[in-house]
Amino acid sequence: MAEQNRVVRLVSRPTGSARRENFAFADEAVPEPAEGQFRVRVRFISLDPAMRGWMNENPVYAPPIPLGSPMRAYAAGIVEASRNSKFPDGQAVVGMFGVQRFAVSDGRGVVRVDTALAPLERWIGGLGMPGATAFLGTHRILEPKGGETLVVSGAAGAVGSIVGQIGKRLGCRVVGIAGGPGKSARLTEVYGFDAAVDYKSGDLAKGLREAAPDGVDLYFENVGGPVGNAVLHRMRAFGKVAVCGLIARYNDTDPSGGGYDARATSSILLNRLKVQGFIVSDFGPAAFKEAVQTLAQWHAEGALTVTEDVREGGIDAYVEILNMLYTGENQGKLVLRV
Amino acid sequence: MAEQNRVVRLVSRPTGSARRENFAFADEAVPEPAEGQFRVRVRFISLDPAMRGWMNENPVYAPPIPLGSPMRAYAAGIVEASRNSKFPDGQAVVGMFGVQRFAVSDGRGVVRVDTALAPLERWIGGLGMPGATAFLGTHRILEPKGGETLVVSGAAGAVGSIVGQIGKRLGCRVVGIAGGPGKSARLTEVYGFDAAVDYKSGDLAKGLREAAPDGVDLYFENVGGPVGNAVLHRMRAFGKVAVCGLIARYNDTDPSGGGYDARATSSILLNRLKVQGFIVSDFGPAAFKEAVQTLAQWHAEGALTVTEDVREGGIDAYVEILNMLYTGENQGKLVLRV
Repeated sequence: MAEQNRVVRLVSRPTGSARRENFAFADEAVPEPAEGQFRVRVRFISLDPAMRGWMNENPVYAPPIPLGSPMRAYAAGIVEASRNSKFPDGQAVVGMFGVQRFAVSDGRGVVRVDTALAPLERWIGGLGMPGATAFLGTHRILEPKGGETLVVSGAAGAVGSIVGQIGKRLGCRVVGIAGGPGKSARLTEVYGFDAAVDYKSGDLAKGLREAAPDGVDLYFENVGGPVGNAVLHRMRAFGKVAVCGLIARYNDTDPSGGGYDARATSSILLNRLKVQGFIVSDFGPAAFKEAVQTLAQWHAEGALTVTEDVREGGIDAYVEILNMLYTGENQGKLVLRV
Repeated sequence: MAEQNRVVRLVSRPTGSARRENFAFADEAVPEPAEGQFRVRVRFISLDPAMRGWMNENPVYAPPIPLGSPMRAYAAGIVEASRNSKFPDGQAVVGMFGVQRFAVSDGRGVVRVDTALAPLERWIGGLGMPGATAFLGTHRILEPKGGETLVVSGAAGAVGSIVGQIGKRLGCRVVGIAGGPGKSARLTEVYGFDAAVDYKSGDLAKGLREAAPDGVDLYFENVGGPVGNAVLHRMRAFGKVAVCGLIARYNDTDPSGGGYDARATSSILLNRLKVQGFIVSDFGPAAFKEAVQTLAQWHAEGALTVTEDVREGGIDAYVEILNMLYTGENQGKLVLRV
């Protein structure tokens, strides 16, 4: 039997969490590249918090995915059947290949990566978009000078774990917020954070007071909701907040709740905070490339710990694995092996 | 009978709105200046939204007012009984003289003003702290380049009416939000705004859609609450928000409500907004002086419309007049004549 493509297509827009019935799982013919194109055999699919937003009818950064189209995904794979000399057969690449086994590309937006330096899956994680997001958000938005207290939420995740390590390199006291004792322990033991706060363990405000007794100068926001509020309540004068994600809200259908509460909003005024939203693409491809090169260099020196949580189950496990992101089941960058 | 000082002292900390019983109104001896000091006969007291915060136990910008002390206030008056050659008798001055008829000062933080250029009360309004706040918040935080849509809330107030006029000078389309048909009409007719939205007239979101059909690039926030949310929902990508005040909340005792709601908070992320709190003193005395000089120049040229709402009743009317700020009864800068 000839090999088949397996494609996950969005067929309806979820309300709340994505469910299996929002997708069609189909066997299709393996696509053939035209002149100038190449085929990618996808090996690893990145599960990203932004995916839930892409399923909505309204644009969230990127245009909405048209119903019937393959689910958009950042992925890593190997070039085959190439008709493009810049991407020869066997070349390892990352790009927006979608939730499918095979993709065809003309090379636009596709990055060649070196699997001698790091395993393929790492180039969609700590050495890919999440790494660049951590690097550029910290350097360009928070701009640590050294000596500040830097707090990051979602700290055990793909972005957060790298934010903390960059903060340490730049001379900050780094406090991570994560859910559960296992993740919290990893922050100090594996990633070298100065302190960890387990937001599931009860009194978040008290935990933050102990971990950041002098208040918070810099906050890398991945979560929002009660976690975001608790940190904003503890910000010091002239503090900065880099808003990278608000994952606490992505599956929420109630638009009236869950923003920054009155005390957090007052903190913006009273403490003269600078609160800035960003996405990694705002900084342009040159900055992205420089960020990844710097991280790869640190990684090669053994000075950057990057963790992937690679899940089995293949294409058909997409929805179930994706939803682990929002329940916080993953440890490090969540990746689906194809 | 010898003249007496009349002093309003804070005797208890209000919950919700300030009430008359939070203050003692006392006749006291007129204070005598020592060597290097002078006495100020206070003529006009500025009613400022920040006053409510100063009454709290926790510091809001300035240290809390100790119970039993005169209520802090920015005011304008005339020097008398001077023993300081820099402030001769008859000199018009503005400073933090408190809610009282007479104050003694050594000149620190006191500014000499020229009543030939503008009436005395204007130097605590459009040509004083509110004017400098409007000028520096607009220039330094919003940084208009021209062509943007600039929205200001509390637009008929001391700060807002000047923000709008500065926005027009800098080439913005200026939309003001104010409460009631009278105030809204003044925005376009008196201050030259391009459009006005009356937040009391029903559908604020619809009003904003019509007044700012292409969205909002720059927002000068004086109000917060539902008004602030409605504007944040309409921000364009890479917009800026200068958080100068959140007057909707100053008398609110419920810390859980009234912040930026979920859609507004998401807008910070999705539109990559820069939201920054500030107070005028952050920019330093040189910037303050330059701002006031520039505004006074425009005023002298007839290019700046400044309105005071001078209320009679003297010192004893302080609480009643102050509370007009929070109910929005004033038209322009609210001032109490002593």
